[in-house]
Amino acid sequence: MTVLDMFNPINKDLAMVEEQLIESIDTELPLLDEAATHLVKAGGKRLRPAFVLLAAKLFSNSVEHVLPMAVALEMVHMASLVHDDVIDNSVLRRGQPTVKSEWGNRISLYTGNYVLAKSLCMVATYQRSDILEVLANASMRICEGEIKQMQSCYDVHQGFKDYLRRIEKKTALLISVSCQLGAMISKSNDTEITALKKYGYYLGMAFQVTDDILDFVADEKTLGKPVGSDIRQGVITLPAIYALKYGASRQQLGKLLSSPELCFNQAEEIVSLITESDGIDYAYQVSCTFAEKAMQQLNCLPDVQAKDALYDIAAFISGREY
Amino acid sequence: MTVLDMFNPINKDLAMVEEQLIESIDTELPLLDEAATHLVKAGGKRLRPAFVLLAAKLFSNSVEHVLPMAVALEMVHMASLVHDDVIDNSVLRRGQPTVKSEWGNRISLYTGNYVLAKSLCMVATYQRSDILEVLANASMRICEGEIKQMQSCYDVHQGFKDYLRRIEKKTALLISVSCQLGAMISKSNDTEITALKKYGYYLGMAFQVTDDILDFVADEKTLGKPVGSDIRQGVITLPAIYALKYGASRQQLGKLLSSPELCFNQAEEIVSLITESDGIDYAYQVSCTFAEKAMQQLNCLPDVQAKDALYDIAAFISGREY
Repeated sequence: MTVLDMFNPINKDLAMVEEQLIESIDTELPLLDEAATHLVKAGGKRLRPAFVLLAAKLFSNSVEHVLPMAVALEMVHMASLVHDDVIDNSVLRRGQPTVKSEWGNRISLYTGNYVLAKSLCMVATYQRSDILEVLANASMRICEGEIKQMQSCYDVHQGFKDYLRRIEKKTALLISVSCQLGAMISKSNDTEITALKKYGYYLGMAFQVTDDILDFVADEKTLGKPVGSDIRQGVITLPAIYALKYGASRQQLGKLLSSPELCFNQAEEIVSLITESDGIDYAYQVSCTFAEKAMQQLNCLPDVQAKDALYDIAAFISGREY
Repeated sequence: MTVLDMFNPINKDLAMVEEQLIESIDTELPLLDEAATHLVKAGGKRLRPAFVLLAAKLFSNSVEHVLPMAVALEMVHMASLVHDDVIDNSVLRRGQPTVKSEWGNRISLYTGNYVLAKSLCMVATYQRSDILEVLANASMRICEGEIKQMQSCYDVHQGFKDYLRRIEKKTALLISVSCQLGAMISKSNDTEITALKKYGYYLGMAFQVTDDILDFVADEKTLGKPVGSDIRQGVITLPAIYALKYGASRQQLGKLLSSPELCFNQAEEIVSLITESDGIDYAYQVSCTFAEKAMQQLNCLPDVQAKDALYDIAAFISGREY
């Protein structure tokens, strides 16, 4: 079972999002059309659209009105991925060739910009400036997060808070915004919007911590990339920060993780040292705490099927076995 | 005399734009703050803010209400420049080190994205979705233009129309949008908005043709970059297209311009062959025709000082001596 199974209640709606994602690429330029369509078809968990849909389903069975928003949020996410691939020189993402590897840097960069502009066109259809403000603010903070992530590589002195502020911007913010906007364009009140915004935030935090754990413990097939990819790039996540602070091999780890060369060449050894510490368990507890906080936000929301789904997603993350 | 002297009537307003450009960079992240501030302080002609201001001045003496829009449009432009510098590996722009050369690709890319997101925040303050739509649509078409420009490099078979469609997206569109939005947020009617949109379009076309001529005939000091920079990169502009079609040395030029190596190493010779043809004169005539069309659009607009300035700018471009 994966988190995707939690989306079964909205599978039909997600299929419509998928259709509209493809349809929304409507450039007359064949090269741009191919690259953007490749980006869409390369897939992804479609987490952000799923949260837009579930948030809206709390207030109405019919969610046709939120489809453009769901598509727009996935496009904002895709734009950031295609830019990341340029910077990180990534050849594969989710086991598929990246736009960068197939078309090069220039097309990747402009495909990202095009997809972002297109998402704004879709958001404009709502004729709501409060929505644009939420999205533009999130976009600014996501950029800050990307730079913070870069600065924190190989930094063995970073603390838990540094990590949390970073994943907040990297992941939690856009999931939070997805839940918030799904509610804002539906018949909801301010309390409900705030609750969903917070739910998305805590759930996004739990999700990213879990994702970071998987880089240590999952197999390559599940991940779509080799185990220890983060370590190889000097990305120090929660289990590593714990091991650096409290693990038996903390001195050795400090030397290894502060060196780009050692991170790249001895990633497997580093992964072993971290999994031997209590870092994974600690991160798991942090993830659970976030997931529980997410669940608590649901109390004030309408008792409908979508609420159960939102609850189940959080429960699944907190109850995940490694 | 340069086109900047035409902006004397709005120098005070442009100084306020400059202030607000600096102030609008309000990130807590020192690195992002430095890079974005560097980008702003590296200067530029501030053409787009100037057109927003002049368009608004047609309808009201006080233009404080358009300052955020003027700032936003310059930011959209700056975001595209900083991304271009990443792709083109540019070390200098306007004689100053680029963000790319000082901070590298990653910071440049995210600085561009940050500045773009910030510009959207400023646009959101107008609470007008029609404005967002105009801007988002323009952004999409600008991306298409960038890709078209890339595809047309070293293509000696391109026609005049290919060139015109390309500079339309590269330059005319954002100047057109600047004039249009300046009017849309002022007390103007639909006829006036359309006239300004068209004025900006024709003026932008004239401006880019002139700019492309300068790459052949200006000196390095005026340009802020070496003469023949376009040729060196295989960018084939109007004088070159004319020379390829009608010049005495068209066969030799065809061989030279289709080879990246020869473009890079024999740029001076290529520049000579093109200036010996009537390509510069032809391009100059095209620029004049566009500038005259721009002037014609002004007929239906209020007879105030700003209209004279808009007229003078077009007249200056059409009367420029080479």
